[in-house]
Amino acid sequence: MTTDIDAVRAYLTGLQARIVSALAALDGKAFGEDAWSRDETGALRGRGAGAILEEGNIFERGGVNLSDVQGDRLPPTASAARPELAGRGFEAMGVSLVMHPRNPYCPTVHMNVRCFATTPDANGARHWWFGGGMDLTPYYGFEDDARHFHATCKNALDTIDVTLYPTFKAWCDRYFFLKHRNEPRGIGGVFFDDLADGGFDRCFAITRAVGDAFLAAYTPIIARRHALAYAARERDFQLYRRGRYVEFNLVFDRGTLFGLQSGGRTESILMSMPPLVRWRYNWQPEPGTPEAALYTDFLRPRDWV
Amino acid sequence: MTTDIDAVRAYLTGLQARIVSALAALDGKAFGEDAWSRDETGALRGRGAGAILEEGNIFERGGVNLSDVQGDRLPPTASAARPELAGRGFEAMGVSLVMHPRNPYCPTVHMNVRCFATTPDANGARHWWFGGGMDLTPYYGFEDDARHFHATCKNALDTIDVTLYPTFKAWCDRYFFLKHRNEPRGIGGVFFDDLADGGFDRCFAITRAVGDAFLAAYTPIIARRHALAYAARERDFQLYRRGRYVEFNLVFDRGTLFGLQSGGRTESILMSMPPLVRWRYNWQPEPGTPEAALYTDFLRPRDWV
Repeated sequence: MTTDIDAVRAYLTGLQARIVSALAALDGKAFGEDAWSRDETGALRGRGAGAILEEGNIFERGGVNLSDVQGDRLPPTASAARPELAGRGFEAMGVSLVMHPRNPYCPTVHMNVRCFATTPDANGARHWWFGGGMDLTPYYGFEDDARHFHATCKNALDTIDVTLYPTFKAWCDRYFFLKHRNEPRGIGGVFFDDLADGGFDRCFAITRAVGDAFLAAYTPIIARRHALAYAARERDFQLYRRGRYVEFNLVFDRGTLFGLQSGGRTESILMSMPPLVRWRYNWQPEPGTPEAALYTDFLRPRDWV
Repeated sequence: MTTDIDAVRAYLTGLQARIVSALAALDGKAFGEDAWSRDETGALRGRGAGAILEEGNIFERGGVNLSDVQGDRLPPTASAARPELAGRGFEAMGVSLVMHPRNPYCPTVHMNVRCFATTPDANGARHWWFGGGMDLTPYYGFEDDARHFHATCKNALDTIDVTLYPTFKAWCDRYFFLKHRNEPRGIGGVFFDDLADGGFDRCFAITRAVGDAFLAAYTPIIARRHALAYAARERDFQLYRRGRYVEFNLVFDRGTLFGLQSGGRTESILMSMPPLVRWRYNWQPEPGTPEAALYTDFLRPRDWV
């Protein structure tokens, strides 16, 4: 077993390229590229490559970010689970994506795979862990879509260990939950963090299984929903529900808070924000409507496979 | 000197009524009223009276909330400055308002006055403190408006102590600052918290000075700007800038975090969210435009009076 951080870096670089290429082909509009690097003392150093799509044919806004950063001190969000490492130097790399389609029948998706490693100590030893997952946030639910998304995640993880999907699925349901709304963010998917059990090679393989499954999990859903006709009512509900996405990411999301706390690049972190969002006071859907069905049938933990 | 919490309650009740009446007259549309109360063990108990305006003639969304709550344990945001009180029972009451006008030439405004008090101990002693302030967030800046707003705050506070305005003005500039953007939220105003120096009567008087000054500080600005013609460009910039308001309130605002942490009423707390908001990747105004002038001339601490 090795701790081959360079192999992780190479995998993530390739993963971003594959995903951007496939989503651009699906949309018909190329992503804009925005590479950045910085080397400031006292802050996060490193580089990133953002691929951003705005006002596409299918995607109203989205991005697939690759980041590869180093810091002198692990921030509190990263060392919370392992206080003995507080203040250690680290590197962190990951691919993170959020895609917000324009059509309200198309779900928003989030996927992230990442690796943390502390800088080697005097003996050359380093701590490392992986994290990642993907989750789906529909505005109008389709059971077929939810089953397909979850089944793709399950099949990918089952090739390594059949206990992974149930564990990561439940973890996702717990993580993507808006406490102040008593409401899940969407229909979930898989989520894992602080993964180090079983050695580097196994954890890296699990992370790859999730990253590699993303396109198969999401793009068929977009292909079959993006041309569905919709009207102002559906658009309005989508904008309203996007407010929940904002609330989750800014109030609860560990990655967002890590980025903002550690002096990360704000525009890259907030790439996850939806393009257009509405808030309305104390709004509730009428019982029996498709909007009410989202709450009753989809925004609750369910066994989808 | 007394600790007359009932007098604070009466003042706040009257203040809400006066403000709602004046803003409704200005807008021409009545606020909706939404009283609530709850009595749950383990959570926040109490009652509130929300006055909400949506899709008004001038105000696209806004609210003036009165809340009067009790809890068994001070939440961390409230006891941070006085750890010896951590876990004590408390009551908290306040009036909090945010108004988002539709016209991009009209600034968004926030005002809050509040009082915290711990429940009396075995000797009948209780700790109390006041907080409050108001601040203005223009989309297109007008120096006259900024001077008027600040001068009104200054004049109100000068009647009590001429050192208050400079202190509270600087505090406001520090507090309403988006660290991740390195950018103030707006042109500031006044802000104070944990105010207990000089006795209850004096602190209550300072708090009243701020609350009583609100209408004179804000409504003349709306009266002279609400009919200015604007086009899609100005509207678009307004929606983009409203994103900063969301970011501040969900990531930094102590009142919002206190509310969400302590199990407060989500719809009342998030009344502050703008009605419609846009995010756009890495956008910057063209130099020399009115949009650029907001950043260069208004979004920096200035002595306005």
